[in-house]
Amino acid sequence: MSLLITDIGSLVTNDPAHGTGPLGLLSDAAVVVEDGTIAWVGPAAQAPAADEKHSAGGRAVLPGFVDSHAHLVFAGDRTAEFNARMSGQSYTAGGIRTTVAATRAATDAELDANVARFVGEALRQGTTTVECKSGYGLTVADEARALRIAAAHTPETTYLGAHVVAPEYAEDPAGYVDLVTGEMLDACAPHARWVDVFCEQGAFDGDQARAVLTAGAKRGLVPRVHANQLSYGPGVQLAVELGAASADHCTHLTDEDVAALAGSQTVATLLPGAEFSTRAAYPDARRLLDAGATVALSTDCNPGSSFTTSMAFCLAVAVREMGMTPDEAVWAATAGGARALRRTDVGTVTPGARADLLQLDAPSHVHLAYRPGVPLTAAVWRAGVRVV
Amino acid sequence: MSLLITDIGSLVTNDPAHGTGPLGLLSDAAVVVEDGTIAWVGPAAQAPAADEKHSAGGRAVLPGFVDSHAHLVFAGDRTAEFNARMSGQSYTAGGIRTTVAATRAATDAELDANVARFVGEALRQGTTTVECKSGYGLTVADEARALRIAAAHTPETTYLGAHVVAPEYAEDPAGYVDLVTGEMLDACAPHARWVDVFCEQGAFDGDQARAVLTAGAKRGLVPRVHANQLSYGPGVQLAVELGAASADHCTHLTDEDVAALAGSQTVATLLPGAEFSTRAAYPDARRLLDAGATVALSTDCNPGSSFTTSMAFCLAVAVREMGMTPDEAVWAATAGGARALRRTDVGTVTPGARADLLQLDAPSHVHLAYRPGVPLTAAVWRAGVRVV
Ligand SMILES: [Zn+2]
Ligand SMILES: [Zn+2]
Repeated sequence: MSLLITDIGSLVTNDPAHGTGPLGLLSDAAVVVEDGTIAWVGPAAQAPAADEKHSAGGRAVLPGFVDSHAHLVFAGDRTAEFNARMSGQSYTAGGIRTTVAATRAATDAELDANVARFVGEALRQGTTTVECKSGYGLTVADEARALRIAAAHTPETTYLGAHVVAPEYAEDPAGYVDLVTGEMLDACAPHARWVDVFCEQGAFDGDQARAVLTAGAKRGLVPRVHANQLSYGPGVQLAVELGAASADHCTHLTDEDVAALAGSQTVATLLPGAEFSTRAAYPDARRLLDAGATVALSTDCNPGSSFTTSMAFCLAVAVREMGMTPDEAVWAATAGGARALRRTDVGTVTPGARADLLQLDAPSHVHLAYRPGVPLTAAVWRAGVRVV
Repeated sequence: MSLLITDIGSLVTNDPAHGTGPLGLLSDAAVVVEDGTIAWVGPAAQAPAADEKHSAGGRAVLPGFVDSHAHLVFAGDRTAEFNARMSGQSYTAGGIRTTVAATRAATDAELDANVARFVGEALRQGTTTVECKSGYGLTVADEARALRIAAAHTPETTYLGAHVVAPEYAEDPAGYVDLVTGEMLDACAPHARWVDVFCEQGAFDGDQARAVLTAGAKRGLVPRVHANQLSYGPGVQLAVELGAASADHCTHLTDEDVAALAGSQTVATLLPGAEFSTRAAYPDARRLLDAGATVALSTDCNPGSSFTTSMAFCLAVAVREMGMTPDEAVWAATAGGARALRRTDVGTVTPGARADLLQLDAPSHVHLAYRPGVPLTAAVWRAGVRVV
């Protein structure tokens, strides 16, 4: 079965071969999908015939969003903590430990239902690829379980045993790193593609982060790093040195950090939802882009600091707050996310790519920033299957 | 026919008689709707029987949003202008004149379809009351037409002939004020409830604004004012002096302005979508609230400076940027909007109120700020009729 999607007012291909600028913009376009894959892209007037036809009615179509940073395997939420923070009240309970306790206490079925719920919520907003981290289990069994459950929903699973030191190891962080790089890694590696670490004061320092990432790499997991979120630190440099696919957050960067990213294949993944929901200063996307770094945008969806699955929201905030143009933000939320996951089959609309497409209820991709908060998803295809 | 809505995990009534705090929060609640009106509110365990029953499944219910400031009668959009502004490029064309030209050129049917589209889009996001201004016609016939079309969609119609000086009167602003207070008012008053003026440098000064508002008031239109958006000015003081229902924007306020609002019945309506989409500094809601002013939140939906219909988005930005607590922002987006429209039948869930209800796909109203950008609308009733 082939499908012709035609009457596309404006098509973002992210392939300059198909159209103008870095977005490869094509007006009055059409796409042919065959066997879940893009088979043809070009002017609607030249489109070949297909078994089925869908009219986009002059509206915009772009690649499905690629959300390369999300923490979806958890139970409970942290409404009271968020409410207290945003109401200027002190709140002494738990933080991340609240989520760890709730996640450990949850059944497999409960966690699976939660992941399905958030993946579905994201899909209904146009996200066709989503990464998913462990990190709320912090025991051998709970981390392995998290990754096993995540793997049922996405191939982009990330072992984040080194999210924070488990409460049981509060007095023995070195012992926890031994666990993360030893028995826990053994249990988790079969279910993960990536290894990640929260390299930050109060979490894991540069040496510990290096130990976690190199141990993971030896097991075939590719590094990615929570780097330089809350303070300056060694995370970004370490990510570049170890050839990480992505350094995520990048809020506090020295000139050397920026230069290191610009001179590397490591993507700078910015997560404006986190700054939005914690009233923190935003990372400077403009500085990274001007230096030549590759920038991705992702949600960081998690119940503590960024409880959003909306890539469109993150994109609009990035334009408002981080010096990105609408075009750059759309690229970063699609092709940028694909780079951060080292995927060549998603994030573009070009022959051979997976047919992951988002049709907007708007004539241009710019409306994702121009119409903040408005649900603009008109249709979504994932691997050629209409899912919304 | 009566309808019992039960299993409400958390109900925002905005009536302290029903529950805790200014939001009148009630857990495990139920509501009975009869003939489009709230007939009963209380604990689910004590709910009376009804002809039909809807379970909210433990999720949150609140009054439908009241969007008391929107410009929905227009044609075209300003994507290129927005894109240029957010891309740091100069853009010399038209601004508001672009929209005036497109609106004048549109047929009645086109304008009506646009209003219907935006009212529908807002409704699907939980907005059950929306105000609608003229202001893109700027001729006698075009302003009257705008209000006639708006009145088919909402009773909250606002005559804003004094949006900017019409291009034809660029050299004769006094002549335009004469038109706005004379022949144009005669043509528009039958279709409007409110009279509004953009009191700002480059639009209408204090004397002109006073002339517009007093002329409208003589025809039975109640004043509301675009005040102190781009600079300090006389708008807020004028609004209070003339007993306006609302002073809108309130971005640049002196201590005297704040005191005047706090000592009046004039609501301070804040429009964070405008600052979001123009990268301008936000108004200080905290200062107004601490002084005792009544604060409403609205979208300012218009194609130039705030092209959003999402009250949830505006609420989340108000919490992030304007010092509001989630509770205050939810109140401002519901009961606050009702105050700004001097409506006692909407914005609350209490016996006798119109049955305008929004059920969230979330356990608490706090999620409107906690989950920014995520479409959380699970169900909407307007005057007791399920519309989403
Ligand atoms: Zn993260
Ligand atoms: Zn306005």
